[in-house]
Amino acid sequence: MITHISPLGSMDMLSQLEVDMLKRTASSDLYQLFRNCSLAVLNSGSQTDSSKELLSRYENFDINVLRRERGVKLELINPPEEAFVDGRIIRSLQANLFAVLRDILFVSGQIDLAGRFQRLNLEDPAHITNLVFSILRNARALHVGEAPNMVVCWGGHSINEDEYLYARKVGNELGLRELNICTGCGPGAMEAPMKGAAVGHAQQRYKEGRFIGMTEPSIIAAEPPNPLVNELIIMPDIEKRLEAFVRIAHGIIIFPGGVGTAEELLYLLGILMNPHNHDQILPLILTGPKESADYFRVLDEFIVNTLGEKARRHYEVIIDDPARVARQMKKAMPQVKENRRETGDSYGFNWSMRIAPDLQVPFEPTHENMANLNLYPDSPTEQLAADLRRAFSGIVAGNVKEVGIRAIEQFGPYRIHGDPRMMQHMDTLLQGFIAQHRMKLPGSTYIPCYEICR
Amino acid sequence: MITHISPLGSMDMLSQLEVDMLKRTASSDLYQLFRNCSLAVLNSGSQTDSSKELLSRYENFDINVLRRERGVKLELINPPEEAFVDGRIIRSLQANLFAVLRDILFVSGQIDLAGRFQRLNLEDPAHITNLVFSILRNARALHVGEAPNMVVCWGGHSINEDEYLYARKVGNELGLRELNICTGCGPGAMEAPMKGAAVGHAQQRYKEGRFIGMTEPSIIAAEPPNPLVNELIIMPDIEKRLEAFVRIAHGIIIFPGGVGTAEELLYLLGILMNPHNHDQILPLILTGPKESADYFRVLDEFIVNTLGEKARRHYEVIIDDPARVARQMKKAMPQVKENRRETGDSYGFNWSMRIAPDLQVPFEPTHENMANLNLYPDSPTEQLAADLRRAFSGIVAGNVKEVGIRAIEQFGPYRIHGDPRMMQHMDTLLQGFIAQHRMKLPGSTYIPCYEICR
Amino acid sequence: MITHISPLGSMDMLSQLEVDMLKRTASSDLYQLFRNCSLAVLNSGSQTDSSKELLSRYENFDINVLRRERGVKLELINPPEEAFVDGRIIRSLQANLFAVLRDILFVSGQIDLAGRFQRLNLEDPAHITNLVFSILRNARALHVGEAPNMVVCWGGHSINEDEYLYARKVGNELGLRELNICTGCGPGAMEAPMKGAAVGHAQQRYKEGRFIGMTEPSIIAAEPPNPLVNELIIMPDIEKRLEAFVRIAHGIIIFPGGVGTAEELLYLLGILMNPHNHDQILPLILTGPKESADYFRVLDEFIVNTLGEKARRHYEVIIDDPARVARQMKKAMPQVKENRRETGDSYGFNWSMRIAPDLQVPFEPTHENMANLNLYPDSPTEQLAADLRRAFSGIVAGNVKEVGIRAIEQFGPYRIHGDPRMMQHMDTLLQGFIAQHRMKLPGSTYIPCYEICR
Amino acid sequence: MITHISPLGSMDMLSQLEVDMLKRTASSDLYQLFRNCSLAVLNSGSQTDSSKELLSRYENFDINVLRRERGVKLELINPPEEAFVDGRIIRSLQANLFAVLRDILFVSGQIDLAGRFQRLNLEDPAHITNLVFSILRNARALHVGEAPNMVVCWGGHSINEDEYLYARKVGNELGLRELNICTGCGPGAMEAPMKGAAVGHAQQRYKEGRFIGMTEPSIIAAEPPNPLVNELIIMPDIEKRLEAFVRIAHGIIIFPGGVGTAEELLYLLGILMNPHNHDQILPLILTGPKESADYFRVLDEFIVNTLGEKARRHYEVIIDDPARVARQMKKAMPQVKENRRETGDSYGFNWSMRIAPDLQVPFEPTHENMANLNLYPDSPTEQLAADLRRAFSGIVAGNVKEVGIRAIEQFGPYRIHGDPRMMQHMDTLLQGFIAQHRMKLPGSTYIPCYEICR
Repeated sequence: MITHISPLGSMDMLSQLEVDMLKRTASSDLYQLFRNCSLAVLNSGSQTDSSKELLSRYENFDINVLRRERGVKLELINPPEEAFVDGRIIRSLQANLFAVLRDILFVSGQIDLAGRFQRLNLEDPAHITNLVFSILRNARALHVGEAPNMVVCWGGHSINEDEYLYARKVGNELGLRELNICTGCGPGAMEAPMKGAAVGHAQQRYKEGRFIGMTEPSIIAAEPPNPLVNELIIMPDIEKRLEAFVRIAHGIIIFPGGVGTAEELLYLLGILMNPHNHDQILPLILTGPKESADYFRVLDEFIVNTLGEKARRHYEVIIDDPARVARQMKKAMPQVKENRRETGDSYGFNWSMRIAPDLQVPFEPTHENMANLNLYPDSPTEQLAADLRRAFSGIVAGNVKEVGIRAIEQFGPYRIHGDPRMMQHMDTLLQGFIAQHRMKLPGSTYIPCYEICR
Repeated sequence: MITHISPLGSMDMLSQLEVDMLKRTASSDLYQLFRNCSLAVLNSGSQTDSSKELLSRYENFDINVLRRERGVKLELINPPEEAFVDGRIIRSLQANLFAVLRDILFVSGQIDLAGRFQRLNLEDPAHITNLVFSILRNARALHVGEAPNMVVCWGGHSINEDEYLYARKVGNELGLRELNICTGCGPGAMEAPMKGAAVGHAQQRYKEGRFIGMTEPSIIAAEPPNPLVNELIIMPDIEKRLEAFVRIAHGIIIFPGGVGTAEELLYLLGILMNPHNHDQILPLILTGPKESADYFRVLDEFIVNTLGEKARRHYEVIIDDPARVARQMKKAMPQVKENRRETGDSYGFNWSMRIAPDLQVPFEPTHENMANLNLYPDSPTEQLAADLRRAFSGIVAGNVKEVGIRAIEQFGPYRIHGDPRMMQHMDTLLQGFIAQHRMKLPGSTYIPCYEICR
Repeated sequence: MITHISPLGSMDMLSQLEVDMLKRTASSDLYQLFRNCSLAVLNSGSQTDSSKELLSRYENFDINVLRRERGVKLELINPPEEAFVDGRIIRSLQANLFAVLRDILFVSGQIDLAGRFQRLNLEDPAHITNLVFSILRNARALHVGEAPNMVVCWGGHSINEDEYLYARKVGNELGLRELNICTGCGPGAMEAPMKGAAVGHAQQRYKEGRFIGMTEPSIIAAEPPNPLVNELIIMPDIEKRLEAFVRIAHGIIIFPGGVGTAEELLYLLGILMNPHNHDQILPLILTGPKESADYFRVLDEFIVNTLGEKARRHYEVIIDDPARVARQMKKAMPQVKENRRETGDSYGFNWSMRIAPDLQVPFEPTHENMANLNLYPDSPTEQLAADLRRAFSGIVAGNVKEVGIRAIEQFGPYRIHGDPRMMQHMDTLLQGFIAQHRMKLPGSTYIPCYEICR
Repeated sequence: MITHISPLGSMDMLSQLEVDMLKRTASSDLYQLFRNCSLAVLNSGSQTDSSKELLSRYENFDINVLRRERGVKLELINPPEEAFVDGRIIRSLQANLFAVLRDILFVSGQIDLAGRFQRLNLEDPAHITNLVFSILRNARALHVGEAPNMVVCWGGHSINEDEYLYARKVGNELGLRELNICTGCGPGAMEAPMKGAAVGHAQQRYKEGRFIGMTEPSIIAAEPPNPLVNELIIMPDIEKRLEAFVRIAHGIIIFPGGVGTAEELLYLLGILMNPHNHDQILPLILTGPKESADYFRVLDEFIVNTLGEKARRHYEVIIDDPARVARQMKKAMPQVKENRRETGDSYGFNWSMRIAPDLQVPFEPTHENMANLNLYPDSPTEQLAADLRRAFSGIVAGNVKEVGIRAIEQFGPYRIHGDPRMMQHMDTLLQGFIAQHRMKLPGSTYIPCYEICR
């Protein structure tokens, strides 16, 4: 089956030079990336969470960029049937397909510019931030003049039933307060708040509901966008995705999750504890059902034991009270607005939040890099937070990413060194994740990809 | 707790004479009706389905109409807390409260006019139809120039899990085809298609989704509007509600249900088999999951055995194929449009469908009226359908309505006479409903309120 | 030439009973009124200002109401060609045609109700005000929640070039401040401010510009709506039109004019000087180019000499300063809003302004009624203002209205009695109007239709 | 007086790198251009038509780009008072100021790219067309999916009263047919059709009226945008402005004008007569009041005598019939649409129209270049048209442009060689322009800047 798809929402007005570039690019080494992300989009809402499975199920799927006098079309060969209704592609999938094309090509064009002409220097923090901004603006995700209302929700993609229902209830309470949701775009804690908020918006007759799915190429295939995502954005790598979350957020909620969620929290604390950000307002709430109270107690203790008591100033833990979570967020919005107004900052993109280069520059989890992490209590706090975040990031890679898994097979587990007491806290935290099945989907036995060397 | 609510959506621009009338009416015998419907609205989405329970839980709830120079406000005394978010009423409930006020008062005003000045004669079929039209127009439910897209869904409020999920899937397929939904406004088969369609609309980025809940005063308290209803309409009685369904529909789907659903089907066949309606186009589909195949087989046989083989021309039974149901509906829409255009009829309100006076005039299920039903195969088909419908309507009343239950207590079961073979078919059908727990909520033992006299 | 016109803006959703009534009415004695108003609308923008000329030019014009299943159409027979572009009627004329039908029939229906059932008593001040409100609401001229921005402009339809350009400049300054315009719907001072405001709105990219033409049946044929009018409203008589102006206005500007304009000013002062209206806020500015300074000096003196120095508290005279006029109006709007908010009054319709019955009840200018006016300085001011207004109203009728002209022919000039000094002031004012050609169009010699009896 | 202006319509979301570039550029040699164009915008609607006068009147006007965290503001020092209402800048001027900034900087950025990196080659026809497209897209002047409705109107800025009123009437007829207008942005024949169309749109209640003013830096100061322009676009030079006109047009109307208008007509014929454009559909009408019949007769003869009888296939002359002009345009729109659809071309930008490099590359009117024009009947027609267009372009420069006037002063009149009969026709045409005061504003004596050498 072959079908042609016209642009929707993006890429609907291209110059002929741009179409030429597009055709060239789509036949370059970017092609595989583009094909796989497109296939993920066409599987939106499917229940799989394994990119391998997804890709192998549609081996004869193909996608081509076609040139038309007035722009481009996409040719889909053997696409999943579920993406169509009576022969016409579902409109949100159509829009998301072109969002994939838009982001992959835009980023490729920008990086090309960087490489060839040094106009953009991707190691210069200001340039990185400008790239993040440009991608979001190009995706029309930044709205001039809109008052703060975007709540970023983090948490695991594999959470239990209690946690799922709780996250949906929090989403409903957020939606009832006309707040919008931005998540990592997949299932679990990334889907539940959107589901709840959609109903809340309907109850309030709020028509402008935004459900941003912020993903990156290595994740999207494993976590196809859930069906509620109405703005799909693909950032080029994990660090830029994290930066995009932080700069677009007017508030952040963290639901239970695994090592990845711990990584996100440490990244954020590394930023919020930076003295330059002393006057920033960004409410941060850790929340879950009463069954998850323990989870947050352990996480909180780990934070205090590593980054110190003062870290607590930056977040609040709320157990089993969805309305209170949403109320706190709503109450903070006018303060966020006032703060932006005072500093002359944009409501839609937090330019003035300082993100240290340590946190911006991509971290490659080689055995050497993992061994060299500097996990000692006498480091400056932001730096320690950054290194802790790298440790967790490495474990995520060792657990689930192609490149990490292969490295572990070859060289054995990562060896993580540091201050003995700190290492003990880390071990406790990780053992807890293992016991609660947060490392891997339930059903398999988890073999740690790391060794804590006290 | 006392709170004041401003109009939303309706009643936001009243003359001072109208406010006077409103205040008078709200302190008249309509008051109780108004209070109870308002309380039902404020409980939207609550899981109860017993009006008695609902009303008794909020005995100290009260509502008053307040006069303001520019119009009215409602004063709520001790309303359910769930209707509020941070002290502000949820906007859909606010709109629905004023919809209640609007419909009850509008109808009261019209009937008043009828009674005093004979301008409106509620026994004249043309006047009844005009009243139905006026109520819908006054509720802004008729949209000029909109192409046909309204699917009326009927079915039981107490259906099993399989049936619920199936109805939601059908709703999703309808929503994916940008069709809108009108149901009886409560839970079960009235909620499921709306839930599915809301997701389907979001997938298609369709922003104009309409979810009409069409109810009547004696039902609303037992079946509070589900949270998806975004247009609440209260018709004055069961017959006008049925007429409103038929005239606003561009297609009708019947899910499994009990006696009430059988009543609706017979009402509709009574209309569609009327020779005056020979050229009407109104697709009618009976559908359910494969577990419900038997249910429809029995119902279909009953129809054929009573109204004859030719009744089948007017409906199609589709088992376990949600996409096909929706596809058939979608395909019929251009035909409906063409048919209306040709006859010069409105797209939004089917003026030319003939509804016999037998079906329009309210039926009172006294023992005498029930005994006098004329259930013989030699009656003209439309008349037989009308009498069968009355029989089922009486059983509904005997099962669940205050007035019916009391009559049964006093005089024993209704006695239904008729042609022996027809009576046997009827018995079989009703026995099936009993066996499948469609007469009463599961858990209780059903004692029939009728006797079939062969 | 025969053509059929579908409803636009109004009358697009009628019940069949309403269509029946419409057809009956359109063939009743209202028919001639309806035909003539429709013909006036179809001549919008034509340069004539004589109803006789207009009507005689299109003697074979005819209009019929056609019944369609879904509502009505209008059949036009031999309509003016200028109303069409390539065979299709100009959309603003189409809308205005149905506005005529809407208002004439609505009022007729209301008055019918009044006559037959005493539900509406057209001598009861509250009922008159309610009728005015209902007509405006039915015309969708009242917008819920819109902040005050409606400036009513009065002045002559036959003004000189200087005055026209000045009024257009004032309109431009009002438009630049995003204020809307309501006038009497014809040419001259009724057209110029709209023209200017339309350009001002465009300069400010203000898309919601409203240009209300408020007319009445005996005037519309002589003063066809100018092409800028985008909301046409036909009030049943001169007094209800005046009341509609006052209740819809958030501010009033008076440009030079003749006896009619003097009548309007006295009507307004009769209201503003009423002690019940002490706390009302309704800015009133008399303005013209420097060439008109004398005109306003004489008018101002007349007011002071008859109603006393305190009348001046209610208006300001601004000569030759369009920006100042508009700035004053704009500055007053927040005060008007605050005042309405405080008294709980509607922003769109000033319910709380008290209008004495003397000013509401239609005045018939018979010789007897004119002779009985009570023009003495010892009357209460509101009453004196009301009687002075009647005197001017009578002179307008004697000058230009069919019925007045015939009465003068039969019985000679009206005789107006009163206090000698007051009569002298009146004489001076009227002599001034004559000298400035404000009584009749230039070119004819004016023979007074009145005698001042000192 | 100093005031700060926020972005409106454009430039409202800039990255910090962009703001840096902006500040640098605004202090570069582009600054004078930017300042003068801004001053022209702030004088929109003023009656002057001399850039020298305008600039000298506001010598102490200055403009600065200010950096804000969230983007830019403009600081105006001593701006014209007329640009403000009660201290706030008029919104259309605010938007146009940022349009100037947008276009000047965008083009500068693009050309910068071209110069430094050879990504864009401004001598390559495809790249020129892409630049034209990019500027229009960046100005949001291209609307996806909008059906053809853009009529480009050309003609002199200094036309007589008859011609002005006629052009306004044509504009009114176009507006009544819901067509939009694109002109050169100044007074005269560039303003009149917009004025008329604005009223026509209002009569048809058409809210989407577009009035594009397409100008270029050397003209805008002499011809400030008229107040109706709601989309201001500044193309980098005369040839790209002509190309933009042709590619954005769905039809073109030529009113009377001088040498500039003749240049435009020859440019267009040079394109339309190109065999590659054989299947293009672009209706072209030359029109004026009956007083201008002679003007078009002479022009038409000149065309036939130089380019041959077959040139006439491409245009129609309509004298004194505004409705017919508009009707022809309206009738052609579905054909234009069908033609674009068939060739897969965009509705908003005519990619497939071939424009020969001769017509795209800027022509510099030096004495040498003028002397070398090849004006002989045996040249291929497109080439002859191109050279004739250059001859007229040179005369325009010699008449009014700084650089041309200085060259004439130094070297005497341009000498134009060619075939004797052709030269005679040219002389006749130019003598006619002189006699009709179309070379210079009335009042001055015209001294030819050229010599025809037969």
